[in-house]
Amino acid sequence: MEQKDMIYEGKAKKVFNTDNPEIVIVDYKDDATAFNGLKKGTIAGKGAINNRMTNYLMKVLEEQGVPTHLVKEIDDRRTAVKKVDIVPLEVIIRNRAAGSFSKRLGIPEGSDLKCSTLEFSYKDDDLGDPLINSYMAKAIGAATQEEIDLISQYAFKVNDVLKEFFAGIGIELIDFKLEFGKTADGTIVLADEISPDTCRFWDMKTGEKLDKDRFRRDLGDPEGAYKEVFARLGFGA
Amino acid sequence: MEQKDMIYEGKAKKVFNTDNPEIVIVDYKDDATAFNGLKKGTIAGKGAINNRMTNYLMKVLEEQGVPTHLVKEIDDRRTAVKKVDIVPLEVIIRNRAAGSFSKRLGIPEGSDLKCSTLEFSYKDDDLGDPLINSYMAKAIGAATQEEIDLISQYAFKVNDVLKEFFAGIGIELIDFKLEFGKTADGTIVLADEISPDTCRFWDMKTGEKLDKDRFRRDLGDPEGAYKEVFARLGFGA
Ligand SMILES: Nc1ncnc2c1ncn2[C@@H]1O[C@H](COP(=O)(O)OP(=O)(O)OP(=O)(O)O)[C@@H](O)[C@H]1O
Ligand SMILES: Nc1ncnc2c1ncn2[C@@H]1O[C@H](COP(=O)(O)OP(=O)(O)OP(=O)(O)O)[C@@H](O)[C@H]1O
Ligand SMILES: [Mg+2]
Ligand SMILES: [Mg+2]
Repeated sequence: MEQKDMIYEGKAKKVFNTDNPEIVIVDYKDDATAFNGLKKGTIAGKGAINNRMTNYLMKVLEEQGVPTHLVKEIDDRRTAVKKVDIVPLEVIIRNRAAGSFSKRLGIPEGSDLKCSTLEFSYKDDDLGDPLINSYMAKAIGAATQEEIDLISQYAFKVNDVLKEFFAGIGIELIDFKLEFGKTADGTIVLADEISPDTCRFWDMKTGEKLDKDRFRRDLGDPEGAYKEVFARLGFGA
Repeated sequence: MEQKDMIYEGKAKKVFNTDNPEIVIVDYKDDATAFNGLKKGTIAGKGAINNRMTNYLMKVLEEQGVPTHLVKEIDDRRTAVKKVDIVPLEVIIRNRAAGSFSKRLGIPEGSDLKCSTLEFSYKDDDLGDPLINSYMAKAIGAATQEEIDLISQYAFKVNDVLKEFFAGIGIELIDFKLEFGKTADGTIVLADEISPDTCRFWDMKTGEKLDKDRFRRDLGDPEGAYKEVFARLGFGA
């Protein structure tokens, strides 16, 4: 497979065409941004960690029946994935109050929820990725009812699998963001990444934050946090 | 029925206890507010119009199988209603893009929607009545799944009935806000009001706004707009 022209440079990844029109290469950067790009920085080693962690977790999820875009890891930072049309919804699952949920509802971070929640944010940087609901998603043509049902089912399945998986390595999965896409043949698959950039991971014993909040909130040593999660996944330092 | 102490003074109505613990009296004011109370004013005659319009429409809805809090109109401005515990959700139905929907999604007012939408806002003035979804409502204990299902079913039924009703008098029902409550015996009923304060009404021929947007946006003669809708309902001037 040959890497061709870059088709997108995002905040955390570059996407390249290949000689196969159904496959793109994702190239993970060390760049970190927060607050819709207002805060910028670098987390050394992040690209390689997020690439390999994403692939590892996507394999786990495939085994549990969640279809993903994963094709093949190419090297430390690059992975071949099925090219998809991204459904323009960020799909957020929460197991505990934190971040924008806490702010919106005036509920302290870490508060218990009566049930896990699913949220859709409309993927539009200019609008600030606003929270919407499934009626709104349908009304503006962002997704159909069938897509919403399937995406919701997959997202809760991802939560079940990952919550248990991370609990096994002493990490509480507080919340996370997923993106889904449609492949050439119209199949909905899990796309994008699953990493400390897109999940909140709290150490189960100490409560220590092991995710991008260390960067967002200047809590110190984000590199160490990313490495810690990576090490617990069995990837030695 | 005897009116007793005032138990709540809101932005548009006062609520009084009566000698019957299951019944309160709602007293409609001419006060108008917008933008979560930031803008204040008066719309002469609004209290009487909203009181009688609400009661008229609630009777229509009762006949169509939607239970309401209505007991009995007392006079021009006052109505006896079943005392309820208000479910802390503003239930918004939209048939066309306008207001906060247009702003949130960058969609011009008046745009067609692929389907009518239902939204829940969490009733909390300090938080600015934020948009939430049904998972979030459950997670924070604002409502149960059963309550959400029933409220959604009633809200769409209200939309079906009122859309057709207003079309019959040359008015397009663009969107509206409902509140539901639980009576002493736990029954969910439609509560609060249905009026130009809580609905967007557009004249079907001219597109003229016949609702509180005339006040919110300083479009002139809100009194005339309220009177116009009232007159079309058959309440002569
Ligand atoms: N399998 C895939 N096929 C095509 N595009 C994908 C695939 N997986 C992820 N993407 C998209 O590739 C881009 C990855 O870049 P990155 O995550 O850096 O973007 P971003 O800065 O977060 O911006 P945004 O997600 O808002 O476009 C994203 O737009 C993501 O939606
Ligand atoms: N049947 C009912 N029993 C008890 N309370 C009711 C009933 N119907 C409506 N209410 C409540 O009575 C109040 C009416 O006052 P008003 O509409 O002026 O309030 P508001 O200023 O809009 O404030 P808010 O709705 O945020 O409390 C509202 O709080 C409304 O929820
Ligand atoms: Mg991204
Ligand atoms: Mg009110």
